[in-house]
Amino acid sequence: MAHSEALPSLAGDPVAVEALLRAVFGVVVDEAIQKGTSASQKVCEWKEPEELKQLLDLELRCQGESQEQILERCRTVIRYSVKTGHPRFFNQLFSGLDPHALAGRIITESLNTSQYTYEIAPVFVLMEEEVLRKLRALVGWSSGDGIFCPGGSISNMYAVNLARYQRYPDCKQRGLRTLPPLALFTSKECHYSIQKGAAFLGLGTDSVRVVKADERGKMVPEDLERQIGMAEAEGAVPFLVSATSGTTVLGAFDPLEAIADVCQRHGLWLHVDAAWGGSVLLSQTHRHLLDGIQRADSVAWNPHKLLAAGLQCSALLLQDTSNLLKRCHGSQASYLFQQDKFYDVALDTGDKVVQCGRRVDCLKLWLMWKAQGDQGLERRIDQAFALARYLVEEIKKREGLELVMEPEFVNVCFWFVPPSLRGKQDSPDYHERLSKVAPVLKERMVKEGSMMIGYQPHGTRGNFFRVVVANPALTCADMDFLLNELERLGQDL
Amino acid sequence: MAHSEALPSLAGDPVAVEALLRAVFGVVVDEAIQKGTSASQKVCEWKEPEELKQLLDLELRCQGESQEQILERCRTVIRYSVKTGHPRFFNQLFSGLDPHALAGRIITESLNTSQYTYEIAPVFVLMEEEVLRKLRALVGWSSGDGIFCPGGSISNMYAVNLARYQRYPDCKQRGLRTLPPLALFTSKECHYSIQKGAAFLGLGTDSVRVVKADERGKMVPEDLERQIGMAEAEGAVPFLVSATSGTTVLGAFDPLEAIADVCQRHGLWLHVDAAWGGSVLLSQTHRHLLDGIQRADSVAWNPHKLLAAGLQCSALLLQDTSNLLKRCHGSQASYLFQQDKFYDVALDTGDKVVQCGRRVDCLKLWLMWKAQGDQGLERRIDQAFALARYLVEEIKKREGLELVMEPEFVNVCFWFVPPSLRGKQDSPDYHERLSKVAPVLKERMVKEGSMMIGYQPHGTRGNFFRVVVANPALTCADMDFLLNELERLGQDL
Repeated sequence: MAHSEALPSLAGDPVAVEALLRAVFGVVVDEAIQKGTSASQKVCEWKEPEELKQLLDLELRCQGESQEQILERCRTVIRYSVKTGHPRFFNQLFSGLDPHALAGRIITESLNTSQYTYEIAPVFVLMEEEVLRKLRALVGWSSGDGIFCPGGSISNMYAVNLARYQRYPDCKQRGLRTLPPLALFTSKECHYSIQKGAAFLGLGTDSVRVVKADERGKMVPEDLERQIGMAEAEGAVPFLVSATSGTTVLGAFDPLEAIADVCQRHGLWLHVDAAWGGSVLLSQTHRHLLDGIQRADSVAWNPHKLLAAGLQCSALLLQDTSNLLKRCHGSQASYLFQQDKFYDVALDTGDKVVQCGRRVDCLKLWLMWKAQGDQGLERRIDQAFALARYLVEEIKKREGLELVMEPEFVNVCFWFVPPSLRGKQDSPDYHERLSKVAPVLKERMVKEGSMMIGYQPHGTRGNFFRVVVANPALTCADMDFLLNELERLGQDL
Repeated sequence: MAHSEALPSLAGDPVAVEALLRAVFGVVVDEAIQKGTSASQKVCEWKEPEELKQLLDLELRCQGESQEQILERCRTVIRYSVKTGHPRFFNQLFSGLDPHALAGRIITESLNTSQYTYEIAPVFVLMEEEVLRKLRALVGWSSGDGIFCPGGSISNMYAVNLARYQRYPDCKQRGLRTLPPLALFTSKECHYSIQKGAAFLGLGTDSVRVVKADERGKMVPEDLERQIGMAEAEGAVPFLVSATSGTTVLGAFDPLEAIADVCQRHGLWLHVDAAWGGSVLLSQTHRHLLDGIQRADSVAWNPHKLLAAGLQCSALLLQDTSNLLKRCHGSQASYLFQQDKFYDVALDTGDKVVQCGRRVDCLKLWLMWKAQGDQGLERRIDQAFALARYLVEEIKKREGLELVMEPEFVNVCFWFVPPSLRGKQDSPDYHERLSKVAPVLKERMVKEGSMMIGYQPHGTRGNFFRVVVANPALTCADMDFLLNELERLGQDL
């Protein structure tokens, strides 16, 4: 099968196409799926950038390569990639490998269509509608609208754009120059996409008024009220509050009922960034953390995070039934959204978005949900909470580990205090020295490939670890490993 | 293997995971890849929405389903989906199924990582850089910057945002209210994303000044000059011109050299929306259509279109070497872009974008390019041009087919004039009746599943067909089929 000359595209040779794809799929199953999720294998194979460039031989050349060379390239790409489905990957708000979701993603890729019209995506137009309906029902809405976006940041931007359009429909045509200065409100613990969105949408980051959070990371409604008054006094027009259900670092849930009261009093759009915490709505035991979410105007919820649906799966949900999405974003392109089609053109949902082509993000979630049912997904959420609790209790039992706070979600934040710093809390350079521990341990774990945990400074706190307990395959043994491994890696510090 | 009770997630059972995925992959190969690209099969299996809903049984329920049921669902999803890789799918600016690109997509999905840091995407951070470097070299730049975006519309928005930020860096913080009214320029043939972007970015659609296009759909530089003068006379500040290389309907290429001259004279940012036509840069024979593109400040180029890399693969390329992307979009989130990492944090490219999590869009293109080489991809482009030319000549030979114009690209636009209208060009209702032909034929072809071709009205012209000759597997026989099938479907009209 080896060729050294440029190859034909294989187009028109179905046997060769099938052989190639079966061979690649074999590599994927062995290397990415089996080894990639096996605790006996490394979670990553660290290489310095210059060495990795050599190993990958990235250059794109004039001549094509043989099938054997291509297969070897596939193996190399997988070998040096981080295994986010591995049980020792605690580094991000997504992890784990759900086989049904992956099956959905492979089908999506093989069908390669765009979600804009019923004409070319009949199955997925109807499926997206049903999946969004299900997510809305979990929020507590029996009607509404919504759309899958390329990530939670863009979902959040949509919410801001919809809120300003609802208040000032003219701004679509005339822009912001003719409007009074606008103000939106979010807590200092919010995701950074609120700031990015304000800049991108032309509002400017100054339009974001930062509301205090309490020591647990929850927005303080009294300060929200105060900030609204201050903005008004400065001549700005408040129009939106973005609350967070599941903050990025601490995993905090803002008090939605109290925030909704404030929004109602001032006539403000309430957006809930539940990108991380939205999936908790599936748990009868824990969904109280989001009490009040049904009072929101919009909700961003990323099933690619806690539900492991695969990147990206980000829903923006709306309570609106007035076709606000389409009015705000539509431009009626006549080459795509012809009005004289032979079917109901309301099925052409593509004009609801600011994209044109849009990936199919619903199938992976739908297929996983069909396989798991509400029950299976609920069990997964409850298990993540239980394992996070187990980890917390283990942290409390061990010397040299200090919780940042009791978590209410599956973000477990703590310091590893190395032997040389134990009992030295009162020394003047304690915090400075403690802050240097996590980067060193991170380097060691990555270079050994034994696990990956994120760390960060936060407010006045120096670097601490944030373990995200989200992978549905985790067990108590993985929690034990994590702590033992930290102790092993840090014993000489 | 059948279960009627809720299933476990399969997590922790690698044998079951592998069995499921191998079974699904078998379905994908048979149904989506083999049948889905076979001319002897239907390109689509039309169902009315209500019937399709029944067939799909979309509802998400409390109980999970058995593996057998899940496999049957996979078959059903594929059966009723449109086969965009089919040789009779001429409906969109993307079509065809490249097996190497699909292999890259399957690997991407199985690795499921986000493109923001070297830490969790070491291979893809380096690979994206190399792919962007290659694309820039084809534009004619030996240095620069760039990023893959979720679609060409968002690439275009980025260009607008970068141009305004470069001129008014304060607007990131202070917003548009403190700026003079801004004006950007594009032709009436531009993609609708320019209008959508202006609205989304807070500029308003009024800020888009529509420049005349000639009868072939190319921007008229003299009118651009005139519009700039008019905008200035009205007190607006011109800041950007968006030229198009490969318009959506007619496939026209704007005269970039002349437009660049105007931009240079007025100090305006030149963006080239080459989402559709950018891939022509690979062809030594045809790349003259984009002469002058090296003078642009930014270029949007979607290899998921003419190169069949798979949705989505959209590059925004910049000539800038001053880190404009990161300065414009960055927000230095301390939990993700820690500055005390053990590697060069310049490799963490995630702060260049307004997203947070970002899909890996480079691997599919890179793997296909490795397999094809520049040569293989060039041949593909040249073949598309040649087949479009063949189709045009056939159209000229046949009665009842009327070209809208001689194409310069692979969009072939024409009317099918049914027997009852032939020779009736002078009758007063001729154009009205002709305009109703395409929707009828479209309905017939879709319901038979024999082929899919888009149609649209355009300016003062009534509905005509636009055949997009992009699928690399096409042959002259497919072109003949297309015309024969139109004649067959329309013989009684």
